[in-house]
Amino acid sequence: MAKKKKATPAEPPTTGWSVPAWEALRASTADPVARYDPKATPGYTGNKASAAAELTSRGQRLADLQEMLFANGRSGDHRSVLLVIQGMDTAGKGGIVRHVGGMVDPQGLAIKGFGKPTPEELSHDFLWRIHRALPAAGRIGIFDRSHYEDVLPVRVHNLVPEEVWSQRYELINQFEREVTEAGTTIIKLLLVVSKDEQKQRLTDRLNNPAKYWKYNPADIDERAYWDAYLEAYQAILDKTDTDVAPWFIVGADRKWFSRLAVCELLISALEGLNLDWPPPTFDLAVEQARAAAL
Amino acid sequence: MAKKKKATPAEPPTTGWSVPAWEALRASTADPVARYDPKATPGYTGNKASAAAELTSRGQRLADLQEMLFANGRSGDHRSVLLVIQGMDTAGKGGIVRHVGGMVDPQGLAIKGFGKPTPEELSHDFLWRIHRALPAAGRIGIFDRSHYEDVLPVRVHNLVPEEVWSQRYELINQFEREVTEAGTTIIKLLLVVSKDEQKQRLTDRLNNPAKYWKYNPADIDERAYWDAYLEAYQAILDKTDTDVAPWFIVGADRKWFSRLAVCELLISALEGLNLDWPPPTFDLAVEQARAAAL
Repeated sequence: MAKKKKATPAEPPTTGWSVPAWEALRASTADPVARYDPKATPGYTGNKASAAAELTSRGQRLADLQEMLFANGRSGDHRSVLLVIQGMDTAGKGGIVRHVGGMVDPQGLAIKGFGKPTPEELSHDFLWRIHRALPAAGRIGIFDRSHYEDVLPVRVHNLVPEEVWSQRYELINQFEREVTEAGTTIIKLLLVVSKDEQKQRLTDRLNNPAKYWKYNPADIDERAYWDAYLEAYQAILDKTDTDVAPWFIVGADRKWFSRLAVCELLISALEGLNLDWPPPTFDLAVEQARAAAL
Repeated sequence: MAKKKKATPAEPPTTGWSVPAWEALRASTADPVARYDPKATPGYTGNKASAAAELTSRGQRLADLQEMLFANGRSGDHRSVLLVIQGMDTAGKGGIVRHVGGMVDPQGLAIKGFGKPTPEELSHDFLWRIHRALPAAGRIGIFDRSHYEDVLPVRVHNLVPEEVWSQRYELINQFEREVTEAGTTIIKLLLVVSKDEQKQRLTDRLNNPAKYWKYNPADIDERAYWDAYLEAYQAILDKTDTDVAPWFIVGADRKWFSRLAVCELLISALEGLNLDWPPPTFDLAVEQARAAAL
């Protein structure tokens, strides 16, 4: 008799969300980024302790869904999921990748961090390096920074003329529409950290030898452009928050909340694929007879 | 005052190992692979329950060391670690990647599975695709299959003439010596599964819809060449178990043991690098003053 490998409930267990994260955190219904409260926990009625317990069970749910996505990818389904993460320095982008990515099989992840473009990357259009890093079938891609850098520091510092960066929003929307139509579910995450919290985190990095390596003097240079960055973030929310590739805002000052929130967003994206275990790609009766004869 | 981010004990806690895994599992001191007991737990005096508890604490130790390796990689240290995994079908190579890899930050991993070579790969020498998948500075690379495929199925099925594959052992030794000298610590893992256990695992995959995707009819075809594979495995142990790139044998029938054993081997490899947190790459006093003035 067929047995289930493990229980994968169709309905989530009771959680601390009064409004699903997918709705409560959608950028289009949130305050403007300049007024967004980085300590807010919209839709979530629990606290730090309940969130920790919830993250364990929901992390298992995420792992089950990821395995099912991977299984389908191996069986001819070309779909994938892409989580794009943006946010100020110290907002905890890497921590999200570590802790949320760490809940699933690392073989199913395609993690890519985008730094300053290389000479080769600069010799192509700005979406070239993005396209080639897109997740393969069955994978969950995670971008730590992304094509949005090309309308964030690039805009703030006028690294290209305005007539170039100003056209990129529509190019990005077209690109994301194509990617989505090719089978990749995109969710975009803006981690919002407060200026006070950023100061604290920078100071912590300078006071702890185990964190020196995370410190970059340029972070303080960039902090001088805080308001210009807020404007640039608001522009991407205004111009690129689409139903095919939605933006979500998550406050970053409370790490226990941001991790749980991103876990929920990924679960929602995966549940939206209506996955099931793929049928055998071979003749089941024939193979069962062969195995029985071993 | 500087504070430690988290305790990273220099000495491992009391464990169930009477002989360190690094010694107890070294292929050169083990029985020939054809007589190796896949249920054996050499050097380990604990049981399944103690191993589970131990894996939690040792997994944290592994995660701490991995973060330190990564930090050094970001700070100019070019060293890395590479775990090469080989073994019969169903031996649990993917499970090792999932469970041991899952204990560390996925951003610090470079996981690569090697399948049947693509036409492009075949147009190059057999080490071409291997070289380009080597881990970058500060990373832990994990190869699920590797260049050893070119002296395993390739040898068993004579996919190239004997005069070609027979020369590959020395080419591999040269290659691994070069890679090691360039800063990559290589550890090679042969997972040995029993024929009975393989039959059980193949049957399980055919009786569980959640596992159909893991079943490949070719696995039963390959099983017919069991003894030829044992000979080919023995040949790689005899010819490529070097002090710079040692082979370890781990029985695969008890997954709780193989996971703990591989965790220990990785910890030993990382401890052998004598890592510490890297010094700041900037003027600490200057940056502390800048941060204080924010």
